[in-house]
Amino acid sequence: MLDIDIGVRSIFRRLFQGVLPPRWIRRLQQPIPPNSIRWEFANVVEPDPLRRLRLNISYQKLEQMHPADLADIVEDLSPAEREAIFETIDSEAAADALSEVEDPKMQASILEALEPEKAADIVEEMAPDEAADILSELQAETSEEILDEMDSAPKTEVRELLEFKEDTAGGMMNTEYVALHHNATVTDALAALKGNEDLLEGLNTLFLVDGDEKLVAAIPLARLFLASGNARLQDLAAETLVQVNVDEKQDRVTELFDKYNLLTLPVVDEDGKLAGVVTADDIISLLRQK
Amino acid sequence: MLDIDIGVRSIFRRLFQGVLPPRWIRRLQQPIPPNSIRWEFANVVEPDPLRRLRLNISYQKLEQMHPADLADIVEDLSPAEREAIFETIDSEAAADALSEVEDPKMQASILEALEPEKAADIVEEMAPDEAADILSELQAETSEEILDEMDSAPKTEVRELLEFKEDTAGGMMNTEYVALHHNATVTDALAALKGNEDLLEGLNTLFLVDGDEKLVAAIPLARLFLASGNARLQDLAAETLVQVNVDEKQDRVTELFDKYNLLTLPVVDEDGKLAGVVTADDIISLLRQK
Repeated sequence: MLDIDIGVRSIFRRLFQGVLPPRWIRRLQQPIPPNSIRWEFANVVEPDPLRRLRLNISYQKLEQMHPADLADIVEDLSPAEREAIFETIDSEAAADALSEVEDPKMQASILEALEPEKAADIVEEMAPDEAADILSELQAETSEEILDEMDSAPKTEVRELLEFKEDTAGGMMNTEYVALHHNATVTDALAALKGNEDLLEGLNTLFLVDGDEKLVAAIPLARLFLASGNARLQDLAAETLVQVNVDEKQDRVTELFDKYNLLTLPVVDEDGKLAGVVTADDIISLLRQK
Repeated sequence: MLDIDIGVRSIFRRLFQGVLPPRWIRRLQQPIPPNSIRWEFANVVEPDPLRRLRLNISYQKLEQMHPADLADIVEDLSPAEREAIFETIDSEAAADALSEVEDPKMQASILEALEPEKAADIVEEMAPDEAADILSELQAETSEEILDEMDSAPKTEVRELLEFKEDTAGGMMNTEYVALHHNATVTDALAALKGNEDLLEGLNTLFLVDGDEKLVAAIPLARLFLASGNARLQDLAAETLVQVNVDEKQDRVTELFDKYNLLTLPVVDEDGKLAGVVTADDIISLLRQK
């Protein structure tokens, strides 16, 4: 976690140089164990807009932190301080941090405190499934106000996900997957990946669908490294295609991850069409909340 | 799960054609939901070696099943039937299935029932961390007998892992990772992957180490697709390097997976040298057991 520590120490140095005795600064420059990042920090948050401007450098640092660490900090603040942060940092950093806030009630209250325009900007930057999870925690009226302010493409996707029950595969899935036609080659797959750089970080499986969008096969991403460009993806498919219906119960989804050591589980609709994927990190979060 | 169902139905057809009324066979040929695979199967297991020979076709089918499904079946059998299966199927299929048996006590009793030579063959085919987990469940004497029969390379690795406490990162980690020198290029990485086809299925992160084997960076595997061959891996590194010491407590390891949405967490020894990795599927199994 050196990256994080350096970020934190750098903020301390900038803010406290010349204010604290030098002995203190040296201590702060020691590696800070990740657990203690919390809110030694509270002083860099400033609800007063004029003073906030002066502290702008700190907001930039906040935006550069890992979203999970920023979320930890946010969780330790007062509602006014939380609002000040989410109004000030850019929508993408705000979306990432909001996704990492653990308590759904706190997520909802952060969005509720913002103007609908700003809230919509943030929700647009979130993964559609997480956006739907948060909006479903809000009053129907507030949720509608925010949806109204959103661009039409993400709005449609979020509205569709809002239809699924939370404790089903449909309610757990996200729509960040890469699917190709079942006749596609390795070269086609590489082209598709280059067009989806945002998705690449946690991506470990590609999916093949037929002309009717029905799920046909799953390809472990790493197998592409062993194949030539004109190899057909079908020939690299996993031996067992594990899939669930959108209505499948949460417990069964979790059981399948455990049983088949899955990292990604495809979810299909009643016609067998690929509708989304559930990922291992969501299963871990879910199991830890229980 | 069509693949599995086809396997099961094919066994039924081979075994029961001409024995059961045709109506029954048609019913068996309907898709069988994965949960019901269990032990409608029991009849294909035959402790008598002569009859077993005649049923050899079924053993081949067992070897071709997904290890998790074979484990489900094994869990529903009597100890004698279990022993018959593990004595008969090849060591690799036996190792995969044994890894997927959920109850550590049952895993231990299966190994104890086998001759030490056969048990050693199976343990050699297991991932070293899972081998260590199972051996730690056995009587010290039995475990020594099996270790004695093992080849020296896997034996050394398993013995080292046996030193770590079960509820620490060291006790949770496996040694199936790919690490390269911190000056390596994308081309070097591709060459390393081609030499590690066995590991590729669940692989999603590469690690960089310096000349002293100290962990320097983690590279999300998918980023290799976006880079040219002579690009340095260092430039593709994840922004935050999350790592833990071998002595880190299990709860903290689980918390880090949740917080940073990890699929793989590197574990380092007291000198910062890469010692192993913990993977998301192990975290899911652990959390479900709680």
